[in-house]
Amino acid sequence: MIAETICVGEELLCGQTQNTHAGYIAAHLAELGIVQRHQDVVGDDAGQLAECLRAALTRADLVILCGGLGPTYDDITKEIACEVMGLPLRLYPEIWERIQGIFAAGGKLAPPENIKQAMFPDSCIVLPNKHGTAPGCILEVGGKIAICLPGPPRELEPMFEASVLPYLRERSGGYFHTRVLHVFGMGESDVAHRLTDLFARQNGVRVAPYVKTGEVTLRVTANCKDATEGEALLAPVIAEIRSILGDIVYSDCDMGLPEVCHALLLERGLTLATAESCTGGLLCSAFVDMPGSSAYMLGGTIPYSNAAKVCMLGVSEDTIREHGAVSAQCAQEMAEGMRARSGADLALATTGIAGPGGGTATKPVGLVYIALASENNTQVKELRLRYDRAKNRELSVLHALDMLRRAMH
Amino acid sequence: MIAETICVGEELLCGQTQNTHAGYIAAHLAELGIVQRHQDVVGDDAGQLAECLRAALTRADLVILCGGLGPTYDDITKEIACEVMGLPLRLYPEIWERIQGIFAAGGKLAPPENIKQAMFPDSCIVLPNKHGTAPGCILEVGGKIAICLPGPPRELEPMFEASVLPYLRERSGGYFHTRVLHVFGMGESDVAHRLTDLFARQNGVRVAPYVKTGEVTLRVTANCKDATEGEALLAPVIAEIRSILGDIVYSDCDMGLPEVCHALLLERGLTLATAESCTGGLLCSAFVDMPGSSAYMLGGTIPYSNAAKVCMLGVSEDTIREHGAVSAQCAQEMAEGMRARSGADLALATTGIAGPGGGTATKPVGLVYIALASENNTQVKELRLRYDRAKNRELSVLHALDMLRRAMH
Repeated sequence: MIAETICVGEELLCGQTQNTHAGYIAAHLAELGIVQRHQDVVGDDAGQLAECLRAALTRADLVILCGGLGPTYDDITKEIACEVMGLPLRLYPEIWERIQGIFAAGGKLAPPENIKQAMFPDSCIVLPNKHGTAPGCILEVGGKIAICLPGPPRELEPMFEASVLPYLRERSGGYFHTRVLHVFGMGESDVAHRLTDLFARQNGVRVAPYVKTGEVTLRVTANCKDATEGEALLAPVIAEIRSILGDIVYSDCDMGLPEVCHALLLERGLTLATAESCTGGLLCSAFVDMPGSSAYMLGGTIPYSNAAKVCMLGVSEDTIREHGAVSAQCAQEMAEGMRARSGADLALATTGIAGPGGGTATKPVGLVYIALASENNTQVKELRLRYDRAKNRELSVLHALDMLRRAMH
Repeated sequence: MIAETICVGEELLCGQTQNTHAGYIAAHLAELGIVQRHQDVVGDDAGQLAECLRAALTRADLVILCGGLGPTYDDITKEIACEVMGLPLRLYPEIWERIQGIFAAGGKLAPPENIKQAMFPDSCIVLPNKHGTAPGCILEVGGKIAICLPGPPRELEPMFEASVLPYLRERSGGYFHTRVLHVFGMGESDVAHRLTDLFARQNGVRVAPYVKTGEVTLRVTANCKDATEGEALLAPVIAEIRSILGDIVYSDCDMGLPEVCHALLLERGLTLATAESCTGGLLCSAFVDMPGSSAYMLGGTIPYSNAAKVCMLGVSEDTIREHGAVSAQCAQEMAEGMRARSGADLALATTGIAGPGGGTATKPVGLVYIALASENNTQVKELRLRYDRAKNRELSVLHALDMLRRAMH
């Protein structure tokens, strides 16, 4: 099956929004063995969108259109797709009721503009939208398929995974079994270099590296008949990767560091507290993000000023005077103070210079200390990061999580 | 000037690499007033690339091609561009010497394949590559321009900024003046509904709405001669939008809620502290994200458990017993306790049920209280959000920020 994607939106053409859909969809189609030959981005111009879709339908069996399902006058994707495919639209009263219900739940009347989100052709598959008012749809005429999806990633991605993937899996025939390994603590080039032989073999099992913030994921995929056969094909390859890379592989089932720590804390029945200076709440938030974290997360402090480090956590004024707030000693006292005051089994602390200002010759931007206090001891690690403020803070959180998961393994 | 981009590479079509070039170039072209109507991604297929480029040259004055300037057999972009434009290639000996020099510096002989990176047509502008072996080029025939750039971002971006931008600035002549308004507290449909008349007019000034998490932005743009004329054209339209939407428009210079609060806190010389339950550190982190926030941010607490609310902030046990931790009373005591203990001028507090579990009939998922304590009084607001955990938390942060900026205006 040959596919193309068309992303619709002026915000992509003027660079206001990055086009993440094309890559997201491409990766999923590749897993199904569907070949993508072309990706397009067009604006809200009816004539141009129609021309683009007509051309795509002559080249491909499947065209996925993203964006332009909103209620406003310049949201035209579904209307143009139906026009090009010769499918007249009609009102689906039950969908219009559902949309009105969404507004009613917020104490509002649905604006009349939204009625177009309840218009679909007679013969089509309507795709439910659990995170917004605009349903998607699958249109099929003469063996050519067009799929219209909403633009916001929060709406598109769940819809794609819940409705489009199962449909395409059935249509494409191929089954691809995939496991995603997560690696923290080594750059992509080094990971790729160590796995060169393994990449070159690729006999039936494909291993592809992807870079995420601060980590590398390895997508291991086999084309096979079912999950059981897939697991049997993948197991020796995953074992080989683990033996080459060692314990920097921290997950083989696509769990990130927060999820791995969350599962280990629940399994071990341990409680946690955090004390964050440079990460400013990001670390605690990574746990609070996950439902069920209240079982182990007692709370956190963000002692951003020196005075707060002393009065919230009992860091000694001498420590700050002699070693500074960004020091191994201060990180240790923050973690130990947090553990004592919260009564938690484990306490994580961060202190550092995120940048762009605040660096000195001896304490440059990117110098960060993380500490983990437990019943028996306190570990402290020094990081020397070399990115911008946002990425230095994100990486500090990942290093703290990695320290925690290693302590619990 | 109308432009299109064509990014060439199988790695984009299979989702292995995110296409960052299209957005990067789009944003730069928009600043120059060059309108982009189309972005394409194609693979390493000569026929398809030629077809795609021919179509682009009929629609646009300028086509920017990214990628495919490497030394291998499947790097064909420059060769196809020259073929389509009828420009025969010849060897530029001085460029071939430079490429050999790069290899020699690494103690290697230049592979013969690399000679194609020194082939250009007679009439073209060769663009030096300071970070790789492949120069780019600007081709021009009959008023149509094609620009070939290397694929790696660390080669493309410096080349674009050093050579392409100055060239285009001179060629385009046009200037687009833009202001971005931010609106918080009304959905896109309602905003669009109220501005229907204004959208319909569009006489010289274009107003386009975009949705961001929890808010709507309005991009107001005019094609004009310079910034002064642009401001004069935009001013009455912005005034009209403000008069229709009122004080839910909180910025007209593309600042988000955190930036607006940051600027107001600095301007007023006020200090801030946070106490977060359901937002779990996100609110404080939104401030710590911004360089310079240490001037006003004293710190925060994340009293996630009931015990922590009592011991960290002095919330009364009676309040929690009688009203629960998710109550207006608890939010008020959290904010007041945080303000008293930190010594800050202002303290923001959040407590709520983010979901998916933890809701009851009287206190459903999405019930959130936010409180702002200042010297004179404490305001409390009840929210009833209806999204998933992550979005409920993000929106709680935005509502807290909105409460803060309104208090300082």
